[in-house]
Amino acid sequence: MSDRKQPVLGVLGGGQLARMLAIAAAPLGIKTLAVDGASDACAGQVAPLVVAEWTDYAALEAFAGQVDAVTFDFENVPAETARRLVERVAVHPSPQALAIAQDRLAEKTLFRECGLPTPEFMAVDTREDLARALTTIGAPAILKTRRLGYDGKGQFRLKTVDDADAAWAALGEQAATLGLILEAFVPFERELSVIAVRGRDGDFRIWPLTQNWHVDGVLSMSLAPAPTISELQQRATALAKTLAERLDYVGVFALELFVKDGELLGNEMAPRVHNSGHWTIEGAHTSQFENHVRAVLGLPLGDTGARGVSTMFNWIGDLPDAAPVLRAIDGHWHDYGKQARPGRKVGHATLCAPDAKELATRLTELADALDRGEQAGPVVKALR
Amino acid sequence: MSDRKQPVLGVLGGGQLARMLAIAAAPLGIKTLAVDGASDACAGQVAPLVVAEWTDYAALEAFAGQVDAVTFDFENVPAETARRLVERVAVHPSPQALAIAQDRLAEKTLFRECGLPTPEFMAVDTREDLARALTTIGAPAILKTRRLGYDGKGQFRLKTVDDADAAWAALGEQAATLGLILEAFVPFERELSVIAVRGRDGDFRIWPLTQNWHVDGVLSMSLAPAPTISELQQRATALAKTLAERLDYVGVFALELFVKDGELLGNEMAPRVHNSGHWTIEGAHTSQFENHVRAVLGLPLGDTGARGVSTMFNWIGDLPDAAPVLRAIDGHWHDYGKQARPGRKVGHATLCAPDAKELATRLTELADALDRGEQAGPVVKALR
Repeated sequence: MSDRKQPVLGVLGGGQLARMLAIAAAPLGIKTLAVDGASDACAGQVAPLVVAEWTDYAALEAFAGQVDAVTFDFENVPAETARRLVERVAVHPSPQALAIAQDRLAEKTLFRECGLPTPEFMAVDTREDLARALTTIGAPAILKTRRLGYDGKGQFRLKTVDDADAAWAALGEQAATLGLILEAFVPFERELSVIAVRGRDGDFRIWPLTQNWHVDGVLSMSLAPAPTISELQQRATALAKTLAERLDYVGVFALELFVKDGELLGNEMAPRVHNSGHWTIEGAHTSQFENHVRAVLGLPLGDTGARGVSTMFNWIGDLPDAAPVLRAIDGHWHDYGKQARPGRKVGHATLCAPDAKELATRLTELADALDRGEQAGPVVKALR
Repeated sequence: MSDRKQPVLGVLGGGQLARMLAIAAAPLGIKTLAVDGASDACAGQVAPLVVAEWTDYAALEAFAGQVDAVTFDFENVPAETARRLVERVAVHPSPQALAIAQDRLAEKTLFRECGLPTPEFMAVDTREDLARALTTIGAPAILKTRRLGYDGKGQFRLKTVDDADAAWAALGEQAATLGLILEAFVPFERELSVIAVRGRDGDFRIWPLTQNWHVDGVLSMSLAPAPTISELQQRATALAKTLAERLDYVGVFALELFVKDGELLGNEMAPRVHNSGHWTIEGAHTSQFENHVRAVLGLPLGDTGARGVSTMFNWIGDLPDAAPVLRAIDGHWHDYGKQARPGRKVGHATLCAPDAKELATRLTELADALDRGEQAGPVVKALR
């Protein structure tokens, strides 16, 4: 028998997303090769790691020669880097799709074109633009950088129009480099996310909607399937499919949505596997990581149905004691192998149960054992 | 915050069991370091690999200095190697427990001492011993090496006592080195296996019994929980616990059992994670791999309850087309990243469903798509 050649997935960035992609790729017989500027990037514990900066074109071209397709753990790679890679190897999602998903203005414009309403927004290039936008949109509102913002970074909340000077002092400098956008602040009822995947062949799948709770702009808890969503699920599926087709998107993406007066509003799109989809590792027939690997390498997509009901705790800054999660029935621990650091995502835990009632019971008990009653509280409430 | 030190699990052997242990260890924040004589050992795709022979004591001592505990993918390491490792680092299961599990005579003697009946057996050191044993046990019978046999290797089936010369010609040479044992051939009704785990603290867990089907001495299909086992499950749990305590066993082990006239007979013990427990990756709350890692490193054990009903296809020699498994609802593909070779275990697939009826439907459809109707047939029959 001749030697087989296993496919190799290249991942730009070596953080926890690359790590979980590599763990999902291995059972498929797919090798992973990650690139990161840091030699201790945590994906390097489970896959070989090329240590290189994004401008080290020689290293990146050598990397491109070793892989069958390239995807992203960190999507904000410089445009020139992406361009050079695309010349040599399949890159999914495409840099064109990434460019739209990374620009809050382009993304929200696309949402509206696809029939997904958004909070009011206006581009802000100057201090005068900000004044005009505040006249139109009013306060409260949020001034954000158009690009490179995540987890609440690059944002300034204006409670009244009098906060305009403070907002400009905080972000005005970035108007010329990253661009700015003013968005109406929406007093939403809840936050949902769509996790969806599209294959190279156009096959499209969506997981059950996830409900999310943020603390200081960072995801704290998720619950999936989100309670009472049957109509919203249908609507979200149609919207996500339209969006994916418009972008000719390949791979997993997330769509963050607000629910206001029972209607969906588009907040933002993440062109990659997403923190609010981590529950799919144990809570769905196929995880977001496995389906992303399959999509990028052109394999058939797997079923995205849920196995019961799942909730996820995000561990920010430092890990709590693992023992209560390890002891919990259907509790699953995820330590990313990172050093603790304030604000850093260092791990998560998922708790599953056959139904919402049982999950509420298990979650109450686990939150108590972890001394995380405050973090889990909103999920327990939503389950009851 | 001070730098954290992640625990490191050392694994002797770098095959698919080491590979699946490493994949299970990563989410626990545990690094894996495997040792193998072959530089292309498949665990090396997901964890660092030390390439060294079992007699390369310098390399093995350096390895011992880098890990927090040592366990086995390949348990037949030379006694001297194990002895040197035990002096330097925790080794689980202990070489004493391994020694018993590796010797068919010691193992069957222990089974009987623990109250588990076995097929009749007698030690065979000479041709005369074989004649005497055949007089006592009768035919059909099986002559086996006491040590180093697995997957039907090192065995000779005697249909009648007239096969004694042929059996001696095949295995007699090994009487002085590995030792021989004659066992009565039992026309069993079915084959079951126990997968159980014991922690460093004595905590003991057992997964639901698995029913197995072998072809040419090699595992072909598993089904778990095995149908209609409630009484046998209780009895197997008590026996496995007694056995584990007698051996002061730490980690996962498998006990292969025959069912004859509704009673359990002990066949053999495997002192490690076992092929018939691969279904636990998706089919149980905690997999055999994760619980083995937890046991060896002294972490709390996880719940061993089943999620629905699962069946496993073993892929021997070569992999079939993955697509039908990837497309199946709750179908899971496991490619070990090995080169194809006749008789080699190169992968497996697991199919899960909420209940036996649904699993029968899904399995029939999948077996058809894979053109593996013959392989899956006995499982479909057992499910109906």
